Amino acid sequence: MKIYDIKGFPNPARVRMALAEKGMMDRITFVGVDVPGGEHRQPAFLARNPSGTVPALELDDGTMISECTAITEYLDHLDGNPTLTGNTARERAIIHMMQRRAEAGLLDAATDYFHHATPGLGPDLESYQNKEWGEMRRERAIAGMRYLDSVLAERPYLAGDAFSMADITAFAGLNFAGFAKIETPAGLSHLEAWRARVAARASAAAV
Amino acid sequence: MKIYDIKGFPNPARVRMALAEKGMMDRITFVGVDVPGGEHRQPAFLARNPSGTVPALELDDGTMISECTAITEYLDHLDGNPTLTGNTARERAIIHMMQRRAEAGLLDAATDYFHHATPGLGPDLESYQNKEWGEMRRERAIAGMRYLDSVLAERPYLAGDAFSMADITAFAGLNFAGFAKIETPAGLSHLEAWRARVAARASAAAV
Repeated sequence: MKIYDIKGFPNPARVRMALAEKGMMDRITFVGVDVPGGEHRQPAFLARNPSGTVPALELDDGTMISECTAITEYLDHLDGNPTLTGNTARERAIIHMMQRRAEAGLLDAATDYFHHATPGLGPDLESYQNKEWGEMRRERAIAGMRYLDSVLAERPYLAGDAFSMADITAFAGLNFAGFAKIETPAGLSHLEAWRARVAARASAAAV
Repeated sequence: MKIYDIKGFPNPARVRMALAEKGMMDRITFVGVDVPGGEHRQPAFLARNPSGTVPALELDDGTMISECTAITEYLDHLDGNPTLTGNTARERAIIHMMQRRAEAGLLDAATDYFHHATPGLGPDLESYQNKEWGEMRRERAIAGMRYLDSVLAERPYLAGDAFSMADITAFAGLNFAGFAKIETPAGLSHLEAWRARVAARASAAAV
């Protein structure tokens, strides 16, 4: 299998961390995509991945899978022993709910802020910016942090007692928010303690 | 189980169609939420569902599940026979990829257009509008329709030979785009044929 990505970017970090959690890093060939140079917007890449996003997973038969949730579902079910996406209907529901909240409420919001209200990836790639919208998204990301803190006041991980893909997404979101200079509000002690727990996992070194 | 929702709205339609596909309509008590009156923004509702969205599924032990993908995962796995979310790693991956593309590229885009570039739900609920952003999202929805048409040129349903939750999402997205007066471009014959196939399913009458 191949992963088309660029190390250090937030969505690639999610899949690299999932791979490390599954012990699958050595089964993957990484193919670099020049995102700062706009390679992901070029026809050759779009023909393979119409979403124009990284990461994308290429299966051995050439099938391309994009979207982090989809890639994580694939990797997690390959060995017949899902550890990141849940085993029961209830576990799956809570993990997918928290996955979506971590995406929509933190990672996607922080990314929108970066692309719209800061220079982002530069004028060539940021061909449409809406600064007012970007600033609103910054506020959304901060509200997302407060919400995640309230969840983590009641349980060790976002979906319950076990680490899941939702934690990976929120961890990547918090890291990217920091990169984009969206400060975590003071006093979110549950979020900070959780962040330290996640950062201490071996898989956190893979991103 | 209870579903908090309002009939006729796009995300409620997704879960109602999934329930009908699973033959589970008679296991659900529907509880109306006065979305036009802003009930979903009130503290009592937000305390139960911090996303402030409909639909939300309440399990018999009081647990609330929001986010359509999460609710569909739950309903689809309850009987141990998933028919909407896939059975293998590969099926799950492709369904989740197309689910996200149908959401981000059509349904969410059309919804953003409605809330930002039209009167939406009225001045009391649309307290922040960004018309320029909304117009961009209209273009995104139309691009999404063209993309879905290209997929359906090669297979009968969005994730392959079998109907899945991705079809439900795209169908709800197309219906809502029509409601919001985002016209489907002429010539998308594969999309139109697929839409007629989906509309002919018994479950389409449930929304």
